[in-house]
Amino acid sequence: MAIKESQTDVLIIGAGPSGLMCATWLARCGIPFRIIDKRSNEVFAGQADGLQSRSLEIFKSFSEPAFDFATLDQSWKMANHVIDMCFWSPDETGKLIRNSRVADTIPGISRYTESVIHQGNVERWFENSIDYFSDGKVKVERPLLPISLKIDTNKATNPQAHAVEVLVTKLNSEAAKPEQYGKVANGLFRAFDGDQEKFYKNIDETNEHDYEVIHAKYVVGSDGAHSWVRKQLNIDMEGEQTDFVWGVLDMVPITNFPDIRNRCAIHSKDSGSVMVIPRENDLVRFYIQLKEVERDPATKADDKQFNGNVDDTKAKTKGRIDRSKITPESILKQAQEIFKPYTIEMTDLSWYTGYQIGQRISPQFSKQNRVFISGDACHTHSPKAGQGMNVSMQDTYNLGFKLALVCKGLAKPEILSTYESERLKVARDLIAFDHKLSRLFSGKPMIPNSDILDGVDMDEFHQVYLEGNKFASGTIVDYEDSLLVSKTGALPVDSNDCTMDQKAAKVPIGRRLNSSNIICQANGQPVHIADRLASDGRFRVLIFPGDVVKYPENLKTLHKFQDCLDSKHFFAKKFTPVNAFANSVIDVITVHGSSRHEVEIFDFPDFTHPLDFKRRCDYWRLYSGVGDTYHEGSVDIYDFYGISKSEGVILVIRPDSHVAQVSQYSIDGLKEVDNYFNNFMIPQTNNVLPTKTSDINDSKRFIQPRLAV
Amino acid sequence: MAIKESQTDVLIIGAGPSGLMCATWLARCGIPFRIIDKRSNEVFAGQADGLQSRSLEIFKSFSEPAFDFATLDQSWKMANHVIDMCFWSPDETGKLIRNSRVADTIPGISRYTESVIHQGNVERWFENSIDYFSDGKVKVERPLLPISLKIDTNKATNPQAHAVEVLVTKLNSEAAKPEQYGKVANGLFRAFDGDQEKFYKNIDETNEHDYEVIHAKYVVGSDGAHSWVRKQLNIDMEGEQTDFVWGVLDMVPITNFPDIRNRCAIHSKDSGSVMVIPRENDLVRFYIQLKEVERDPATKADDKQFNGNVDDTKAKTKGRIDRSKITPESILKQAQEIFKPYTIEMTDLSWYTGYQIGQRISPQFSKQNRVFISGDACHTHSPKAGQGMNVSMQDTYNLGFKLALVCKGLAKPEILSTYESERLKVARDLIAFDHKLSRLFSGKPMIPNSDILDGVDMDEFHQVYLEGNKFASGTIVDYEDSLLVSKTGALPVDSNDCTMDQKAAKVPIGRRLNSSNIICQANGQPVHIADRLASDGRFRVLIFPGDVVKYPENLKTLHKFQDCLDSKHFFAKKFTPVNAFANSVIDVITVHGSSRHEVEIFDFPDFTHPLDFKRRCDYWRLYSGVGDTYHEGSVDIYDFYGISKSEGVILVIRPDSHVAQVSQYSIDGLKEVDNYFNNFMIPQTNNVLPTKTSDINDSKRFIQPRLAV
Repeated sequence: MAIKESQTDVLIIGAGPSGLMCATWLARCGIPFRIIDKRSNEVFAGQADGLQSRSLEIFKSFSEPAFDFATLDQSWKMANHVIDMCFWSPDETGKLIRNSRVADTIPGISRYTESVIHQGNVERWFENSIDYFSDGKVKVERPLLPISLKIDTNKATNPQAHAVEVLVTKLNSEAAKPEQYGKVANGLFRAFDGDQEKFYKNIDETNEHDYEVIHAKYVVGSDGAHSWVRKQLNIDMEGEQTDFVWGVLDMVPITNFPDIRNRCAIHSKDSGSVMVIPRENDLVRFYIQLKEVERDPATKADDKQFNGNVDDTKAKTKGRIDRSKITPESILKQAQEIFKPYTIEMTDLSWYTGYQIGQRISPQFSKQNRVFISGDACHTHSPKAGQGMNVSMQDTYNLGFKLALVCKGLAKPEILSTYESERLKVARDLIAFDHKLSRLFSGKPMIPNSDILDGVDMDEFHQVYLEGNKFASGTIVDYEDSLLVSKTGALPVDSNDCTMDQKAAKVPIGRRLNSSNIICQANGQPVHIADRLASDGRFRVLIFPGDVVKYPENLKTLHKFQDCLDSKHFFAKKFTPVNAFANSVIDVITVHGSSRHEVEIFDFPDFTHPLDFKRRCDYWRLYSGVGDTYHEGSVDIYDFYGISKSEGVILVIRPDSHVAQVSQYSIDGLKEVDNYFNNFMIPQTNNVLPTKTSDINDSKRFIQPRLAV
Repeated sequence: MAIKESQTDVLIIGAGPSGLMCATWLARCGIPFRIIDKRSNEVFAGQADGLQSRSLEIFKSFSEPAFDFATLDQSWKMANHVIDMCFWSPDETGKLIRNSRVADTIPGISRYTESVIHQGNVERWFENSIDYFSDGKVKVERPLLPISLKIDTNKATNPQAHAVEVLVTKLNSEAAKPEQYGKVANGLFRAFDGDQEKFYKNIDETNEHDYEVIHAKYVVGSDGAHSWVRKQLNIDMEGEQTDFVWGVLDMVPITNFPDIRNRCAIHSKDSGSVMVIPRENDLVRFYIQLKEVERDPATKADDKQFNGNVDDTKAKTKGRIDRSKITPESILKQAQEIFKPYTIEMTDLSWYTGYQIGQRISPQFSKQNRVFISGDACHTHSPKAGQGMNVSMQDTYNLGFKLALVCKGLAKPEILSTYESERLKVARDLIAFDHKLSRLFSGKPMIPNSDILDGVDMDEFHQVYLEGNKFASGTIVDYEDSLLVSKTGALPVDSNDCTMDQKAAKVPIGRRLNSSNIICQANGQPVHIADRLASDGRFRVLIFPGDVVKYPENLKTLHKFQDCLDSKHFFAKKFTPVNAFANSVIDVITVHGSSRHEVEIFDFPDFTHPLDFKRRCDYWRLYSGVGDTYHEGSVDIYDFYGISKSEGVILVIRPDSHVAQVSQYSIDGLKEVDNYFNNFMIPQTNNVLPTKTSDINDSKRFIQPRLAV
């Protein structure tokens, strides 16, 4: 009997947050895909827990009002929101005091503040979302282990060819369970991951039924710090090795420390530092630098355990750290020293771990635009800035929609190379930030007006933390000029390190569009513009015609747009398959600058309130950007974006909500928008949708534009 | 074989929104109960759909952050929020114009605006909530038909006696299905409900297994306009008969009418009136007054069909309305006349009905404080103010917690009589409002400056509507002085028709406490005070000590409270069973008037941050009422409630969030609070919780106070 062979558009290897984010995008866009993981499906306490503002924004963008069960936007409801960040360090007498206190998330940077929730919840909400978007057709397949990966270079020129071949095998569940140490769940197996071979030991080579060759157009490796996919691509990690060992405790503390329900960075005089992160269910997470931990000489020079990536020189020569010596009690003991004179005891211990990790980065994120790696597979660093899960998810949030556009035959495969150029820069910035923060966090504090003047300057630490906080929120990630971002004519603005066009003087090009309320013309409902930019795979053209009452010529211009948008040579029709819904590839939304009560919906051209095949009107694409909302204060998105109410503007927004281009509000501006799309989109004028290209509902592939948000 | 006999604390008859609200309360409080319904469990489109502000507040109060599935607070996410209310009527030339436009919900009256969602969703969320709160132990039992009801007057003096006996029988599912007419689901069966006997025809008297005698402490009849329970109690409805027949359509309209996504009242010159209510999924509901509808003489004088309640004189003499003559097309035709010159067509018809209903009210809501009726069983009226489902749910929201307190042995049964006194007044107000509104809505409009001057004055109509809107929101329902409300010393304030105490000059006593943000002292999280007053069966004592930094003596007073609250002769301990959690019956919350950053949590007495049996601290009972929240603006609940920051105040809040008493911030004030509870609570000082009194988890009966909100 021959080994089973099968085809899919995208194969995702690894079902952690990074792989699941990619899967959610593909499911949302109706792309056939599979997602496999070598571990069985037990869910653990602990692991990553911090959700930064941008991740919460992305989660919201995958939510729908009709969801009748918990999906990603449940996170904001269920997670512990972190409000204050408190810095504690010794005063002149060496006594621990609250040195300063700031907002943990910079006010105004996002609708969401940093929040904390157990990774297991996040993964479950992802799985619920995938289930919903794929109509129950896609589930994470586990435990499934990849064995070999080949790219067929002959097929590489055809983006729709199944050019990647991956051999996978089923594991029995027992073999796929992570080891546990003692009674309390812990993450030691993970932090010291070197047990890849454990999986390969458990393959039963005699049973052909357990094997399958998957032919995929594209493969995404989201398989963690010891990535098997990365190894197949012969990409090495670069970066620093480290000797520091950190302990992590999740427990309910009994303490007289007054800031225990706030995020705190505590520098003790002599006993090291602790990061305090308050969590859901009264839990608190502590990150504590441990003093030297014993090593097990029996494990030294055991190269295989490091999966080819030498990230621990000491381990090679002195043996690996002796896991059994890291206990909750030993971690707590260190914490008690740091917290003095405050007392701290432990109850309801829910998880602990020890880890030792370098700041490392992969110099390449992809091979031949066919195989990609994401998340921990391309960058590892300390968890103290709460970035791990976030940047990993944001990697595939960047990649997923591009894969979807290419797999649908809407965009040229060249856009895929922007994944590496955009995310590698983020990873480098992250590593640099983490390196700086770690050094300042781990060092002994300098104590002004005392004899201890050679340590870490707390003011510098605060400053780095605050600067980093902006970056860590994920909201200022800035993508450079490329096929997908056009900064031509825009000016770099030094002070904020971002690029603006004066026509929308507060909208940095390349960054995600910040959100504010707009008001639906048809029903007066205030709605965050971000909620109108759902993650459904569509580009958006946001037309801001200005105040059409005060400047009636602006309304005339808007009526002139109708012909362009009706033309099959112009972006709206040209890049939409002929039997797909209007607005299902490029979604045109108009936000005028007059009071909603001064104009009527039918004053505006048809494209702002189009009829569908049943002659039902789409009321959800014409908004007022200014005025009073009765219940949510007044709104002025023209001011919020720095748009003139006499001049107007046209914004092009990518499917991931990043600002792609800022154009003049005029026919010429609209032609500039057309040019933007011409650079990478594939004309669809004669492209009738195939009746069966996917095992996922076609209605998801080309989105029905009626969205009462 | 003998008929099966069983016991339960409360038997609820009827599983519409009113019965389900009662069930949700009882499940939340851990009371053993059952809920039965004679209909099988098919869910229909249509029926009631309007959710008023107060209902949404109540729904939120039953939600928990940990809910990982859709419950009642899903309503706010999924429902269509109604923003504008537009009044259309003829201008001087007879042409239909938008006469005026106002906020549909009065700004500031609540966190929630009127919203619209299909009743089937609401019922499903109730069932999910009951499932969660009862740990899966209670489900609606259907189809189960009550046959007889007896109150044993000998047992009536003991509140814990199972004094009510109800014989019930199982129906086969087929018999319990409502009839359907044509292919589109409709509500005709319901509006013209007279087919109670249909159920009784289907009883199989030969099978003893199908019968059960339920012995209940209390029975709640939430069984609709033709209430069987009401009939058993020999209570007749009083009120007006009516000849008007209304049609209702739920469909997606195709129209050039610009306000179709807003709530509209449209008075046409000659063709009658229509109420437009935009709904979820692009649906719109139309209430349209129909011209004369044919009657079927064969049905005349068929008394049984009216279930003993003569609500339709014409039907007795001329026969009942011929249901088959009310069609979606006939209703639409009428609408088209009213909308002229605008055109309106229909697609995606999802439901329709015709109804004919009087404004009727039951003079009694209970018998012997043992059997109660609620909802349509005690008041019926037109649906135009969107009140039916809301007032019905609010009836049992009033009753449910009282039953729970009595069944738990915490409160004297006398409190049950406040159900009738409080809700009968609301029903009377509702009927009066509906009577007035209906007359103005149904009449032809007067047209100023024309020759048509004898019709309805549109200005009067708007005025009545606006006045009524306040009432209809459900937020100003005012309960009179009683065992549970103490207005002593407070002054009636004429202009707002409510009663205030100058110590909290903006807190009407007897009304529900309006909500604003407070800031958690421990973690800086802003939280709506209403979310700290969850519907879990507890009374709240809200202590406002004022600005303890500016007035340090106020902090000293707060420390003096500690002894009172520790005393077993004082309310906090006296009315809490000895092995129940602290704060599980009366929840003491402190909201100080200083900036959170000027004080520390440990400056405050222990009762504001108590330790539990594991010495874990409860951080969720000390708040700051003033200051900046970083992300949600600044907060001043002292100003919002009209409380002096030098004087402070103590508020007593009932489990349904109605303000029970306003007392001085002093030991004397605290004693006044003690007196309030002494009037109706039962001392528990020696009352150890029985190990097994219920088939519901005891942890729900006496609430664990740790609630990270």
